[in-house]
Amino acid sequence: MGKEHCNRSSRVYKRESLRFIKLEKKFDKYEIPVKEKNHLRVLRCKFPLTIKAVCEQTELEIVIEQLGNDLIVKNVKKIKKLEVSGLIVYFPLIDSKRLEWGLEKIIELSIQKIYFYYSDHCFYNKKQIKKFQDRFDKLQNLVEEAQKQSGNLTKPLLFNAVPLEKLYNEMQKPLVLGVHGQDVLEASDIKEMSSLLIGPEGDFSKREYDDFSKRNFTLKKLEGESILRTETALIYMASLNKFF
Amino acid sequence: MGKEHCNRSSRVYKRESLRFIKLEKKFDKYEIPVKEKNHLRVLRCKFPLTIKAVCEQTELEIVIEQLGNDLIVKNVKKIKKLEVSGLIVYFPLIDSKRLEWGLEKIIELSIQKIYFYYSDHCFYNKKQIKKFQDRFDKLQNLVEEAQKQSGNLTKPLLFNAVPLEKLYNEMQKPLVLGVHGQDVLEASDIKEMSSLLIGPEGDFSKREYDDFSKRNFTLKKLEGESILRTETALIYMASLNKFF
Repeated sequence: MGKEHCNRSSRVYKRESLRFIKLEKKFDKYEIPVKEKNHLRVLRCKFPLTIKAVCEQTELEIVIEQLGNDLIVKNVKKIKKLEVSGLIVYFPLIDSKRLEWGLEKIIELSIQKIYFYYSDHCFYNKKQIKKFQDRFDKLQNLVEEAQKQSGNLTKPLLFNAVPLEKLYNEMQKPLVLGVHGQDVLEASDIKEMSSLLIGPEGDFSKREYDDFSKRNFTLKKLEGESILRTETALIYMASLNKFF
Repeated sequence: MGKEHCNRSSRVYKRESLRFIKLEKKFDKYEIPVKEKNHLRVLRCKFPLTIKAVCEQTELEIVIEQLGNDLIVKNVKKIKKLEVSGLIVYFPLIDSKRLEWGLEKIIELSIQKIYFYYSDHCFYNKKQIKKFQDRFDKLQNLVEEAQKQSGNLTKPLLFNAVPLEKLYNEMQKPLVLGVHGQDVLEASDIKEMSSLLIGPEGDFSKREYDDFSKRNFTLKKLEGESILRTETALIYMASLNKFF
C-alpha cells in the first residue's frame, strides 16, 4: 500500500499482502506450517523477513530466514497474550451468498463469536438446514481469510446452526433487532451492546417476541423509512459497534 | 414480515415484498408500466391494493384495481415532492464482484450520488477500465433493485468511471479516507461529511495526496489495527453516515 510511481495501465499491485502468519509449536520449537510456507512463496516475500506471528493465542514478532529450500523461524519475541474481544452475534440463516458476504464483512469489522440460528420464520426447510450444517466447515476457511485480510490476530469463533430457543440460556443480554422491536435504536444502545441478535428476513414470531420480553432482552428496531436486509443490518450494526 | 404461525419446515415466506411501484404519466393519466404489472402478478398481490408510488419525483398514494385482465390506477393522492438527499460517494474501481456488492450495500444505506473513478494506483488496466465503462448500464439495474429493496423512493445517480483528477473541480469538499491520511477519523468528521472520497486498494499516490492538500480536502485514516478492504470501508462509512 502507498507505493508510488505505479503505471495506471499495468497491474503492479499485489491484491493481497501478508499481515501476519500462524505458527505451530512442536517441543518448544516454533515451526511454519506448510500452508503458510506456500503462501510466503506465492507472495514472493524476501528473506530475512520480520513479521508478526500468532501461536497459541500469543502475539509474536519473528524473523523468517531461508535455509536452502526451507524457511525457518528466528528471533522470536513475545509481544502479548491475545484476548478475544468484540461483539457476539446471533446470525439467522439467510440466502447462502448473502450469508457468506455478511459473515466476511462483519469479521473484517471485528467480531468475537458468531452463532448461527434458525427460528419460526426461517426461509430454510429441514433439508436446507441439514445441508448448511454439513457444509459448516467450509465457512471456517472464509472466516480465516477475512480475519487475515483485516489483520485481526484473533480468530472469531463460529457455532453451527441450532434452533434459536436452544441459545436462550447462554445468551449474554443481547440487543434484539427486529422489525417489531419496541423503540428505535439509539447511540446509548450501541454503546452498551455486547451481543446482538439480529432478526431473520421474516422477522421474529409473536411467540419469540414474548420469549424476549420474558427474559428482559433489549428489543429495538432500526430507525427511518429505509428497510435493511438482514445482512446489511448486521454489517451496519457491526460498523456502529466498531466505531463507538 | 411479522406474520405468525409459520411452519419452520416449509417456505411460506416470500423473499421479496413490494414496497412501492413506479408510475408513468401519459396525458395527465397515471399508468402502470408493463414491468410493474408483471411484478405485481408474480408477487400475487390482492386487489384493490393501496400502495405507495413514485412518478416524476413525487411520492403518491394510489389504489390499484383489477379491471378484467388489466390493472388500473385509482384515487391518486399526492404526498410530497421528493428531494434526493444523502451522501455523495467517490468509488474507486475494485474487483467487480466486490464493487457490485459494495454498491448494493451503500445504496441500501442511502446514498445520493456515486461517482466511479480510477487513479494512479488502480488495479484495472486500460482494457478493464474500458470494459467497466461499456458494462456500466448493467449496474443501473442493480441500483434500482437495491433502491426498491430498501424502500427508498429516490434513486441514487450513478456516474461512469473517469480519472480521479477529472472530478476534482466538481467535488464538494470531500472527506478523503486513505491509508496515509493525516489524523484518525472522529465522530465530528462524520457529522460534517457530505461527500466521501474513499481510497483505492493501492492507496492514493503521493501526487494525489499533494493534490488533496492543495485543495484543502479533509484527509483522514481509519482508526485501529484492523485494515478494511475498500468496499468494507465504504459500507462502514455509509453506516456511520446513516446513523449520525
